[in-house]
Amino acid sequence: MSLLLAMTGWHVEDWRRRFQALLPDMPIVVPGEPFDRRAVHYVASWKHAPGSLTGLPNLAAIFSLGAGVDFIFADDKLPPAPIARIVDPDLTTRMSEYVVLHCLIYLRQQRRYDRQQRETLWADDRDQPAARAVRVGIMGLGELGQDAARKLSVIGFDVAGWSRSPKAIEGLITFSGEDGLKAFLARTDILVSLLPLTPETRGIIDAGLIAGLAQDGRLGGPFLINAGRGGSQVEADILAALDAGTLKGATLDVFETEPLPPDSTLWSHPAVTVTPHNAAMSEPEAVATAVAAQIRRLEAGEPLQNVVDPARGY
Amino acid sequence: MSLLLAMTGWHVEDWRRRFQALLPDMPIVVPGEPFDRRAVHYVASWKHAPGSLTGLPNLAAIFSLGAGVDFIFADDKLPPAPIARIVDPDLTTRMSEYVVLHCLIYLRQQRRYDRQQRETLWADDRDQPAARAVRVGIMGLGELGQDAARKLSVIGFDVAGWSRSPKAIEGLITFSGEDGLKAFLARTDILVSLLPLTPETRGIIDAGLIAGLAQDGRLGGPFLINAGRGGSQVEADILAALDAGTLKGATLDVFETEPLPPDSTLWSHPAVTVTPHNAAMSEPEAVATAVAAQIRRLEAGEPLQNVVDPARGY
Repeated sequence: MSLLLAMTGWHVEDWRRRFQALLPDMPIVVPGEPFDRRAVHYVASWKHAPGSLTGLPNLAAIFSLGAGVDFIFADDKLPPAPIARIVDPDLTTRMSEYVVLHCLIYLRQQRRYDRQQRETLWADDRDQPAARAVRVGIMGLGELGQDAARKLSVIGFDVAGWSRSPKAIEGLITFSGEDGLKAFLARTDILVSLLPLTPETRGIIDAGLIAGLAQDGRLGGPFLINAGRGGSQVEADILAALDAGTLKGATLDVFETEPLPPDSTLWSHPAVTVTPHNAAMSEPEAVATAVAAQIRRLEAGEPLQNVVDPARGY
Repeated sequence: MSLLLAMTGWHVEDWRRRFQALLPDMPIVVPGEPFDRRAVHYVASWKHAPGSLTGLPNLAAIFSLGAGVDFIFADDKLPPAPIARIVDPDLTTRMSEYVVLHCLIYLRQQRRYDRQQRETLWADDRDQPAARAVRVGIMGLGELGQDAARKLSVIGFDVAGWSRSPKAIEGLITFSGEDGLKAFLARTDILVSLLPLTPETRGIIDAGLIAGLAQDGRLGGPFLINAGRGGSQVEADILAALDAGTLKGATLDVFETEPLPPDSTLWSHPAVTVTPHNAAMSEPEAVATAVAAQIRRLEAGEPLQNVVDPARGY
């Protein structure tokens, strides 16, 4: 049996070297070289070419090498093998670093102080609220959302969460479903999206959603942080809300098209922070180690972990 | 008995109103208006004019209205009354917000990504370390230092602390005294100073101290965050180290002279972040409430709390 590495945009030979070190007895094959398709029991995928996983009769599992699995479901010729997500503690930690950083930039008005420094202006804001007076709302309460919520609470923020299905999480105010969305948004000064991309979340961050955010908060208007998936946001609506003043700022790590096209207004908008989809990059070694452990588990007759529900899409 | 409000740079009438609401039966007096100096039992001070507290024969306590008490000891005609610090949970929380924010800006290279955004450049750093690979060293392990250390640890940083006298703090690697300073600095990638200003800490952040910081860390050189007191830093040495590359960046909330003079090179240095001494502003209501509670305690015959040791200066 063998492991097929199917990826675009990454150096496949680096990954072959990593996996070979972890699984010395397993043949590791890549598209474009001859290999026995019947021997392929496992696929490790990062944006594999759609259709490239057909004709693998003994496929036992597909492993995503990145956070999220939407790029796997984008293949309309996907074989029926189970799909496993990466659950990497490192990735979770990195995402929370990003979320806490950008919530604090808004709380502490760091962009204002950066501007004042450029202007040689010494002036403070006597009415700056403490974290406990600022309500952060996290959309998506999986591993990432729960960890970010916990850390934001330690810093002092007033945190709530929203998820598709109801979740009871100790110490966290939670809302769920379409019914809970309105109340959730109405108590949100900083909206953090960590949603996976599914048919239901596509375009969810639109004019209607933004209009539902709290306008009466201590930060003088709502802010958006999207570190989930770019397909969840309608960038034209975000820009319109920023220009109308109903959204005060946006920090975006993900975009409708990536890399963000050079002609996008987001690059130069004074109220937008752009980062290059690096909120939560996993270390490749950690990802390969997690996938190799799953393969060893299957070889030992143990069940696959972190299996994606195809009906939910995450 | 009465309370004398002695301050410069603040609106004394705002403070009179606040204290009067909290202590409705107490006469509240201010310099420049006639009052009975023998009746003054309490002084609330923010940078009071040196010498202005003489001739108060019945003074029972001096309350600092800001973090730190160095401005009180700067008065060489200070009467021998006990001095009380403000211990305000809100102030502690605000300071930790600031420290975590600026440590994360360095960890996540936010200045690099800001620059890339201005240049419409989509590029990430595949070798960006996680917080656990970055060593933060906190100088000063009072209320502020301990809270910041705890929160930085929750985010994931590898945190140690240094204080003048040995302190055992659960979950924190601690160093102390002159003997411990070298080892502490050698394991520090981001140095955070929360030191009070005393004769021993004046000018402590100088060329020698900076030269002792870790040069082998994952961030490619050490960073400095000073949110303690400007008198602890030698700005010429900081600038020289930045230009020599032995210090990679500095975030300064406090300065040798405040406001920072317009001709200071710090304003425009590309590796310096300047904030206007606002890392941990207390809400005036919270400060007045804490001082009023101390006065009521004394009036009830209970002991003064948070008394400063004049020999240590904090």
